[in-house]
Amino acid sequence: MIIVFKPQAQEKEVKRVLDKVERLGLKTHISQGENTLVVGLVGDTTRIDPKRIEVEESVDRIVKVSEPYKLANRMFHPDDTVVDVSGVLVGNDHLTLIAGPCSVESQEQVLQIARDIKSSGADLLRGGAYKPRTSPYSFQGMGSQALDYLCEAKKETGLPIVSELMSEKHIDEFNDKVDLVQIGARNMQNFDLLKEVGERVKKPILLKRGLSNTYEEWLMSAEYILSHGNPNVILCERGIRTFESYTRNTLDLQAIPVLKRLTHLPIVIDPSHAGGKWWLVEPMAKASVAAGCDGVMVEVHNDPESALCDGPQSLKPERFDQLAKSLRALKNII
Amino acid sequence: MIIVFKPQAQEKEVKRVLDKVERLGLKTHISQGENTLVVGLVGDTTRIDPKRIEVEESVDRIVKVSEPYKLANRMFHPDDTVVDVSGVLVGNDHLTLIAGPCSVESQEQVLQIARDIKSSGADLLRGGAYKPRTSPYSFQGMGSQALDYLCEAKKETGLPIVSELMSEKHIDEFNDKVDLVQIGARNMQNFDLLKEVGERVKKPILLKRGLSNTYEEWLMSAEYILSHGNPNVILCERGIRTFESYTRNTLDLQAIPVLKRLTHLPIVIDPSHAGGKWWLVEPMAKASVAAGCDGVMVEVHNDPESALCDGPQSLKPERFDQLAKSLRALKNII
Amino acid sequence: MIIVFKPQAQEKEVKRVLDKVERLGLKTHISQGENTLVVGLVGDTTRIDPKRIEVEESVDRIVKVSEPYKLANRMFHPDDTVVDVSGVLVGNDHLTLIAGPCSVESQEQVLQIARDIKSSGADLLRGGAYKPRTSPYSFQGMGSQALDYLCEAKKETGLPIVSELMSEKHIDEFNDKVDLVQIGARNMQNFDLLKEVGERVKKPILLKRGLSNTYEEWLMSAEYILSHGNPNVILCERGIRTFESYTRNTLDLQAIPVLKRLTHLPIVIDPSHAGGKWWLVEPMAKASVAAGCDGVMVEVHNDPESALCDGPQSLKPERFDQLAKSLRALKNII
Amino acid sequence: MIIVFKPQAQEKEVKRVLDKVERLGLKTHISQGENTLVVGLVGDTTRIDPKRIEVEESVDRIVKVSEPYKLANRMFHPDDTVVDVSGVLVGNDHLTLIAGPCSVESQEQVLQIARDIKSSGADLLRGGAYKPRTSPYSFQGMGSQALDYLCEAKKETGLPIVSELMSEKHIDEFNDKVDLVQIGARNMQNFDLLKEVGERVKKPILLKRGLSNTYEEWLMSAEYILSHGNPNVILCERGIRTFESYTRNTLDLQAIPVLKRLTHLPIVIDPSHAGGKWWLVEPMAKASVAAGCDGVMVEVHNDPESALCDGPQSLKPERFDQLAKSLRALKNII
Repeated sequence: MIIVFKPQAQEKEVKRVLDKVERLGLKTHISQGENTLVVGLVGDTTRIDPKRIEVEESVDRIVKVSEPYKLANRMFHPDDTVVDVSGVLVGNDHLTLIAGPCSVESQEQVLQIARDIKSSGADLLRGGAYKPRTSPYSFQGMGSQALDYLCEAKKETGLPIVSELMSEKHIDEFNDKVDLVQIGARNMQNFDLLKEVGERVKKPILLKRGLSNTYEEWLMSAEYILSHGNPNVILCERGIRTFESYTRNTLDLQAIPVLKRLTHLPIVIDPSHAGGKWWLVEPMAKASVAAGCDGVMVEVHNDPESALCDGPQSLKPERFDQLAKSLRALKNII
Repeated sequence: MIIVFKPQAQEKEVKRVLDKVERLGLKTHISQGENTLVVGLVGDTTRIDPKRIEVEESVDRIVKVSEPYKLANRMFHPDDTVVDVSGVLVGNDHLTLIAGPCSVESQEQVLQIARDIKSSGADLLRGGAYKPRTSPYSFQGMGSQALDYLCEAKKETGLPIVSELMSEKHIDEFNDKVDLVQIGARNMQNFDLLKEVGERVKKPILLKRGLSNTYEEWLMSAEYILSHGNPNVILCERGIRTFESYTRNTLDLQAIPVLKRLTHLPIVIDPSHAGGKWWLVEPMAKASVAAGCDGVMVEVHNDPESALCDGPQSLKPERFDQLAKSLRALKNII
Repeated sequence: MIIVFKPQAQEKEVKRVLDKVERLGLKTHISQGENTLVVGLVGDTTRIDPKRIEVEESVDRIVKVSEPYKLANRMFHPDDTVVDVSGVLVGNDHLTLIAGPCSVESQEQVLQIARDIKSSGADLLRGGAYKPRTSPYSFQGMGSQALDYLCEAKKETGLPIVSELMSEKHIDEFNDKVDLVQIGARNMQNFDLLKEVGERVKKPILLKRGLSNTYEEWLMSAEYILSHGNPNVILCERGIRTFESYTRNTLDLQAIPVLKRLTHLPIVIDPSHAGGKWWLVEPMAKASVAAGCDGVMVEVHNDPESALCDGPQSLKPERFDQLAKSLRALKNII
Repeated sequence: MIIVFKPQAQEKEVKRVLDKVERLGLKTHISQGENTLVVGLVGDTTRIDPKRIEVEESVDRIVKVSEPYKLANRMFHPDDTVVDVSGVLVGNDHLTLIAGPCSVESQEQVLQIARDIKSSGADLLRGGAYKPRTSPYSFQGMGSQALDYLCEAKKETGLPIVSELMSEKHIDEFNDKVDLVQIGARNMQNFDLLKEVGERVKKPILLKRGLSNTYEEWLMSAEYILSHGNPNVILCERGIRTFESYTRNTLDLQAIPVLKRLTHLPIVIDPSHAGGKWWLVEPMAKASVAAGCDGVMVEVHNDPESALCDGPQSLKPERFDQLAKSLRALKNII
């Protein structure tokens, strides 16, 4: 951590700050420039809240030198983490394909889609049971019954299940029935939920990026889960909010190489939610694989025109079949 | 709701869509342009998810005509809502001033600040007990004990208490001890929490805007609370996330006149979190009052340099005293 | 174009608006909903400025039905446009590779890089002569001399030249020496320059997207050039400005499939400027090709550590050589 | 300037960087932390492009300590600059009111509006002659004739004239006829125009902020003008582009106190373009004055319903009259 003082900082003000820092057990290295005094702090700076120094009138700003996340930091864990989702390994050389409907709507629907994607080579079955909807008047999901339908589909196809957890009150149920527990974009900074998920969820977590969260904030949310006891976190980019309004959101694929550098956790891309249009899914899924992601999650629906949720961004099973083949081929040459 | 068809839409495709719409009990008005067919829907369109029509290949897009929020909509409630916070009326001609420390740190600290702001004419005392922090390693708040300290301060000064609720597991405690229950920016779309707050919280709610949420999404979150049974919602703008990085966030004061037009709920501005620097608080608080807000919430700390949280954006009590006087004077001439 | 009236609109106010519209030679189709009156306009609506109707007190809003760009619109030009850059065809099945230094720095530098990229299979040589720099104190480019060096390199290698035009006063020189004239992101809405470029530049144009411009604004800027007489426009995505600060900008690859749908013009991706870091170039270039772009433009420098401009985002020639091979292989299987 | 090295940086790599820096005539102060080496540079760092050091593999990042703008920097010019616009002083205690139509449409229109705003106490008359329009098919302004009409209005009312310069080819004409030369938001980084304006324009400049430009970029554009010879620059905030779409743009009023701290140049607010709706102008103009701006620029039109441009955001003269009175009163108590 570096303290940059203001040009007009008085000697006694500077001393006051340095005393404060030294009382916290840190050493200081002073570097006097022509206009500006700069002081480097040496020691365990992770326990200091930079704002507590920044508040001093004589301080211009604080520069953080080391990243604030530790468990998620590749610097301390150079090897890739491979997450085991009930036998499916995410983060190794195999490209993980996750597919399924936005919302579970009936036993028959889920079963049919599960069979279709299984035969196309999908690895995991996704399906929404509890749905985060902007409007209280929109369909909120079938809840517990949806999870049972997904379990039936798993029994038949062998595909482990991915579903979103929205509240700590469903943790026991998710521990019983779900193989990969998704934390949605809107809950990425629901810190109480992250703590509970870290402590009580026994399954791996798929942590989606919030709509306007930086890479660092995202990794800090992963750090909440990791530091509370659950080491199995997969990151999922699903589009960020920008000024663009033609698409639902803007898919940030630079996240893939950046995260590969900053962290050892696997990264999966969800092109369906990012674009909001089914014809964007195929090119963006290919781009994601070309950029080096560990997996792709796409919405597949056997009857998008009648879907209760997010039909416009869902692929039909036959399109998914082609896409799955293309992505596998692409992965092989990358 | 209006359906705009693609120029190349086939007659039988159009018919298929119109049948679907009419099966939902709506009437259609057809308007054939030179290139484009446009169909207006008449009837109760609020139950239709536009995406279920947008998914049709022949449909170019859907245009919503009426706002999706009803209980929060000024059109159906022309009069301003005045929210009673344990005797303090928010939303009438009196400017509500909310002040206090970011985090409660000790009995003494809270009492001292409460006395100071009381003598400056503040209406409500704010103080964080449970804190949403980006890092799991930052101070997370004193929790339950902090609420007790606030209650002590209320007993002495008579100031009702504002504090943030982060999890439904604390609802009973907040019903007992807190007068105005804040839902923070990061939980604005934590829909499960919004439902619980609507159903179970007996006190008014201060709903902060999320960092990248539109006015409509914000009002839809208010609608969650209203439609689940709690009619007392105050909206709070606290800055949005933009490309600008000199300030912490960008304070959107156009929200004031826009919300006054769209909704009947009161609106309060929090300039402390928006700017992240104490010297921005005063000019932005004045601007907020000039723009017509119902209240201002500012962080006040008797020793910002030692604050455990957000010191750089806190005013000292003597500055708050001056500011309170200026704001009252300003309110009188607006 | 559709006019949505306010629920409380008076009959005579509506009549006033309809008269205004009909005086402009348009027919109206009236659709009366339960709360809302909607009127479709039939005829040549492209000459009406929607704001002239929106200004009426009784009008809630105007909905545009047809896209405002015509010459750039795929609807009226279903076939892909192939742009001939001095013999290099951009927009057909061949992937166009554009490479070269950010700034031309010396005869030797340009020649060396030109030879290197030529042997790696590049199609066009880029090099900055006039540089748009945020600071007036930064290196502003070698100007005219740089163009001469590029011409020398072209003479030897046969690679046509791409360079940025910043002012109309250099148009004659660019007509003489440059094969593909770039309009930079910061000039995307420099409408006077666009008009001059449309009227006077005899070479094709590479139009970069502005940092915060929508797809529609971008196509409208292309429309300026097309409608002023130059039909050869190639679009170039180079990253947009978002809240993210780890990377220089955010590369928006959804632009590729979206533009392929909206327009017939070719699209090229510049991953160097988007990310600002050389190690982001390779994965993002691959992703661009996988998503279906027509070309990729990358910065290559033989000595990035000594580059006068944008060294951190430049590839060394040997890395470019590998990348070029990968991209060609990828293009073949896409 | 501070160099932060990567934890794994080798000694000889570090030496290589330090040699490079020292060859540029700078001294280095080394500060070795537990994981990280930090080096402060002492001397005239303004001539170094930080990217030339950042490109080194061993360097994690560069931290700028001093602001890159000098002439615009308050640190070196503590006193406020007062700009004399043909006798109207902008930047002293008097609030400058600028008003007039978006576009000049006729002699009669301009004269009428000029008389109206003069009697309301406006200081300067604005009117568009050359108009930057997103569409090539929109009204592009009356050009030279518009400037003549404005001069007529000035002759009668005495109000100095503000108009936008879009191209260097009109500089002579603007030197003759216009008193305050506006550079529009879309040309804020048209560096060739900025240089010409600095060198050749004899009148003060009103520099609007670009739609997605930071404070620092804005001040660097001012620095272009100042360093090329024109010391009279007034800054104008007119709204930035965010995710919000209800309003045209988001007005950033924090710009006022921030710029007052960073620079000595006056700042004017344009609430008309920011909001795009006339009913937002009044509250936002008041907020701007309360926040401490030096002037307000608003669009006034005697017949907004027939305006050729931006009618929806224009005030009628009688509303402007009231607003002007309110703003003067507000300024007095701030």
